[in-house]
Amino acid sequence: MLSSSIARIGLVGAGAQGTEFLFPALMQVPNATMVGVADVRAERAATLAARTGAPSFACVEALLDRCAPDALIVACEPDAQQAIAAMAIDRGVAVFVEKPPTLFVADLRSLAEHARAKGVVTGVGMNFRFSSAAMAIRDAIAAPDFGELVHISLTYAATKPKLPMWNLTSSFHSFMLAQTIHPLDLAISLGGVVARSDAELVHLDHDFAFAKHNLTFERGGLATILTGNVFPRFDFHISAVGSGSKVVSSTSLWSVDVLTAGDEAAIGSMKRGERQWRPSPLDSGYARAGYLQELQMFVSSVIEGSAFPASFESLIPVYEVIESALERASEPCAD
Amino acid sequence: MLSSSIARIGLVGAGAQGTEFLFPALMQVPNATMVGVADVRAERAATLAARTGAPSFACVEALLDRCAPDALIVACEPDAQQAIAAMAIDRGVAVFVEKPPTLFVADLRSLAEHARAKGVVTGVGMNFRFSSAAMAIRDAIAAPDFGELVHISLTYAATKPKLPMWNLTSSFHSFMLAQTIHPLDLAISLGGVVARSDAELVHLDHDFAFAKHNLTFERGGLATILTGNVFPRFDFHISAVGSGSKVVSSTSLWSVDVLTAGDEAAIGSMKRGERQWRPSPLDSGYARAGYLQELQMFVSSVIEGSAFPASFESLIPVYEVIESALERASEPCAD
Amino acid sequence: MLSSSIARIGLVGAGAQGTEFLFPALMQVPNATMVGVADVRAERAATLAARTGAPSFACVEALLDRCAPDALIVACEPDAQQAIAAMAIDRGVAVFVEKPPTLFVADLRSLAEHARAKGVVTGVGMNFRFSSAAMAIRDAIAAPDFGELVHISLTYAATKPKLPMWNLTSSFHSFMLAQTIHPLDLAISLGGVVARSDAELVHLDHDFAFAKHNLTFERGGLATILTGNVFPRFDFHISAVGSGSKVVSSTSLWSVDVLTAGDEAAIGSMKRGERQWRPSPLDSGYARAGYLQELQMFVSSVIEGSAFPASFESLIPVYEVIESALERASEPCAD
Amino acid sequence: MLSSSIARIGLVGAGAQGTEFLFPALMQVPNATMVGVADVRAERAATLAARTGAPSFACVEALLDRCAPDALIVACEPDAQQAIAAMAIDRGVAVFVEKPPTLFVADLRSLAEHARAKGVVTGVGMNFRFSSAAMAIRDAIAAPDFGELVHISLTYAATKPKLPMWNLTSSFHSFMLAQTIHPLDLAISLGGVVARSDAELVHLDHDFAFAKHNLTFERGGLATILTGNVFPRFDFHISAVGSGSKVVSSTSLWSVDVLTAGDEAAIGSMKRGERQWRPSPLDSGYARAGYLQELQMFVSSVIEGSAFPASFESLIPVYEVIESALERASEPCAD
Repeated sequence: MLSSSIARIGLVGAGAQGTEFLFPALMQVPNATMVGVADVRAERAATLAARTGAPSFACVEALLDRCAPDALIVACEPDAQQAIAAMAIDRGVAVFVEKPPTLFVADLRSLAEHARAKGVVTGVGMNFRFSSAAMAIRDAIAAPDFGELVHISLTYAATKPKLPMWNLTSSFHSFMLAQTIHPLDLAISLGGVVARSDAELVHLDHDFAFAKHNLTFERGGLATILTGNVFPRFDFHISAVGSGSKVVSSTSLWSVDVLTAGDEAAIGSMKRGERQWRPSPLDSGYARAGYLQELQMFVSSVIEGSAFPASFESLIPVYEVIESALERASEPCAD
Repeated sequence: MLSSSIARIGLVGAGAQGTEFLFPALMQVPNATMVGVADVRAERAATLAARTGAPSFACVEALLDRCAPDALIVACEPDAQQAIAAMAIDRGVAVFVEKPPTLFVADLRSLAEHARAKGVVTGVGMNFRFSSAAMAIRDAIAAPDFGELVHISLTYAATKPKLPMWNLTSSFHSFMLAQTIHPLDLAISLGGVVARSDAELVHLDHDFAFAKHNLTFERGGLATILTGNVFPRFDFHISAVGSGSKVVSSTSLWSVDVLTAGDEAAIGSMKRGERQWRPSPLDSGYARAGYLQELQMFVSSVIEGSAFPASFESLIPVYEVIESALERASEPCAD
Repeated sequence: MLSSSIARIGLVGAGAQGTEFLFPALMQVPNATMVGVADVRAERAATLAARTGAPSFACVEALLDRCAPDALIVACEPDAQQAIAAMAIDRGVAVFVEKPPTLFVADLRSLAEHARAKGVVTGVGMNFRFSSAAMAIRDAIAAPDFGELVHISLTYAATKPKLPMWNLTSSFHSFMLAQTIHPLDLAISLGGVVARSDAELVHLDHDFAFAKHNLTFERGGLATILTGNVFPRFDFHISAVGSGSKVVSSTSLWSVDVLTAGDEAAIGSMKRGERQWRPSPLDSGYARAGYLQELQMFVSSVIEGSAFPASFESLIPVYEVIESALERASEPCAD
Repeated sequence: MLSSSIARIGLVGAGAQGTEFLFPALMQVPNATMVGVADVRAERAATLAARTGAPSFACVEALLDRCAPDALIVACEPDAQQAIAAMAIDRGVAVFVEKPPTLFVADLRSLAEHARAKGVVTGVGMNFRFSSAAMAIRDAIAAPDFGELVHISLTYAATKPKLPMWNLTSSFHSFMLAQTIHPLDLAISLGGVVARSDAELVHLDHDFAFAKHNLTFERGGLATILTGNVFPRFDFHISAVGSGSKVVSSTSLWSVDVLTAGDEAAIGSMKRGERQWRPSPLDSGYARAGYLQELQMFVSSVIEGSAFPASFESLIPVYEVIESALERASEPCAD
């Protein structure tokens, strides 16, 4: 728990993600102040820092030394993020990194263990989990009349990456770390502990094109994740059905609809109960897609010294499903 | 009131409308039996009649003489319909005609007066008024929480006719009798007596392309009808707002949605109440678009000797708006 | 091949399905004539037959003896259908039955073998396969720019049956024969020979509630069918993605959309190519949901003596998937 | 034209609009730098200014004196805005104000004349005109195959204000200045010079509830604006039809669809051409709703010394329609 009610934040990585999402969202978190920016490309760091009058640095150590931040918010390549996270944890500084936090579950486990030992708050930028639609879906599922979760369907339609990234040899591995991590994390955050998982793949010309991930939750209920880089444009749909014969769904994070059983014949009386949410035509900023809420909650966790839901540790089950899928994929598959 | 519980129906006109809509819908009306078919093209009448074993005729008089129908259901050109309606009324036989029943309001008034004098049940094929969506909208508007009707918006997008029909000289007049009659009739059936109406037109190369009809109802409330033959495909939308801050709307007669004020901020709790109707994926037959209900109600009116809502008389206010618009259109207009 | 260009049809079963779907759709098939109606409840047969002047019967043999139909169209319970189909085939009379044609694959194989030996045309009422949406999707998938089929997603949301039917002991088995048969048949008709299938189930209080069927096609590509009786209302969605980065989808059989990759950034120029289909607001009759086309094609097959696509034989792979799923379900499952 | 390629911006008004929309959008304009913040509530000014290290002031004169801004961006009450704009123009400083810039057209004309005489760039925050959807619609209308504009339909559904604001006595006047100004401005920016306008109103309990504005454009074509405070939630729809039988429409600024005539019968071949735009599920920031583009274009105009499209002068025709509607409303109306 901080002595101050304002968290001092150091931003690391002044690339596209840092500049277009993390920085402007952070500017709207009331109990945070940006105390410095670091990027190995010093000019980019300086340009971004100039917007707030904060100092800029070409290396993270300097930022840590000079600015005494309470937390780092990091948007770099995974290898760099892993090293920066380790450094922050060593110094007892809270750390939030963009996804993927590491390339392998073993490294994630080490970092999570390290953070636990040091009592450091950690976070990963799983913005889907904090989107307005996901939060409404979580509430709808938790409502008593929803009943037990029966099935969650997630379609995460991507157009890239098509080639391996981050020195990995598998395009499927890269794709899962860059993209599948989002619907997997959301499914697990809604469904709970995974009892069993498998994956089916389609390759085109030996390159990864499409995957279906089948999850069974310990408490009952299934999830199906349909994803791949073969789609014509980026899109996301989620739908969950519960034992109370209710369906809650969202299209493109732009809507939430709750569908309830009604009197099928009663067109006149329209008895079928429904609820829906739509954002305003003027919806702006960083809340709807989850960027603002994840930073607000992370900053609050830093100030209070409490756990942030999307901690390093919380991602371990997601990585376990990813690595399990990767093992199966190295076996002969539908091609 | 008939002595029988089954109405004997003569079908007049075995063209597209009679064969594809009226005949099959009539076959599903339980308390009706088709006793004969007439069409000046005797072969068409015979082909259609053969499906049921009923006799066929080349002229209506023969059908009336031989089959003693309780009612005629007619789908011909307006001039023929007017003559056939007059003949049926003269004989005390109920008569239902496709729209438009006549070309001019004076003729419609005469027929309505004739029918009233003879105590004959009349009807016009205003199927929009009897569609599942329109009936649900009527119910929603009548619900106490809807409040007073404030405004009805109807967009009736057509692609034809582009040229004058039925020996009329005005393409706008033809268009109103062939198309605008539907949204006008629906607006008036929902809003009541018209206190005032006007129309604004757009012509392209001197041909009618688009019209906006503005109605003010006596009991308060407005209607706007946007229509024309310039649209890329046939479609229909309706939306009504009431003083209770409720909106009820339908897209393409495929949906009905009731929108109610809620807590704008409450995405989590989704308090905004909504109701909706959608037809089944397997929806088939003639009910949804109103063809079955209009015939069922007409047949019931014939059997009971009661007034049918879409009577000749009920169309007189629609024709008055049409002829008023026509007068204005003969003045110089936006071209 | 018939000597006549008009097929003589005997209708067997004057219950809801026969009266509300098969009979009126049949009335719109131009090259068919209904020559008799049979139902063990003689009164129902008589009522339906009276609409066309055809004779009615309380047993199928009498209809076959007296009316010499070219084909029977049958809507009864599966056991009766199986016996009637066998009788028709024995006599060389073509036969079309509602789904499910039999309860077990062994019986279906026997009937199909019998029909092949006798050279008899057979058919099953798989109307989804003949719906306007399914035909448009089939065309879109066959277009060269769609590429190879990568994945088909089918969500078939049902509300019933919840209990075993037809003297079966398994509610899952009954559900598959009553409902899953539709999306399975459609998936296989689009994807081809099934190389591998499995199913995952969710039971609630030991009763079947939800199933996911995973198919792998021999020529490559996957299918996922999500279904169950736990849903709040009946609905159907299908979406297919191809290696050409195209998606074709339909919601509720009311729409077809083809989505193509475009320039993501180009909002101004709107380069992204799309095609879509919507039925008219006035869409009526039996074509959109497939009832008319299946009968038209069956009647043409009868007249020409050619194979009907949804033959008894064509359903064997569907039953193989069903029985394979049933075997797995008898093992312990997620409950 | 500025000597620098970076415009020095003073922000006036640190209330909700300034803090939540103008400030964060301004932070993303690359060629702008915020040099000071002024608000009569000095604490609010200081809080906002602290985010960037800029100085804050309790009065605009001080900001102008000390910071030498190239432009003011102002979000205050209309009276204050008018005074601040006059002061800025006097000093030759460009000025952008939130809507409404003034309460009366006479004042707007004076300011516009003043700015023209001084050669000062002015702007009004008409963000709808700069939204992604509006820009795509403008492009679609300008495309040759759209043809002549026939009709624009705008539904601007609001829930407030219900009572007079800004010391005005008419709730209708307040509503038009607070809300109707947006769809009127957008309609005029798409349709051109207004030849004729009228308005029809609905009052409930003597309070303004609903208005329909009918516009006729000089170059041909009509517009209909449906608006009011009686709606259950804020929403916005626009649809335009052109003589080329094309429709371009947007729902809630979340979509743009272009609908083109096609072969109605061709469900299989899906020939009907369509284009559509949807924002990404992750769409964030201030571009989609137009806040970023209006500031970017204003800043570019300031730097280049060129006219900004949404200048004070450009709003005069909008105010003329507003005042004309107000005159009519003071006559007896449908109540």
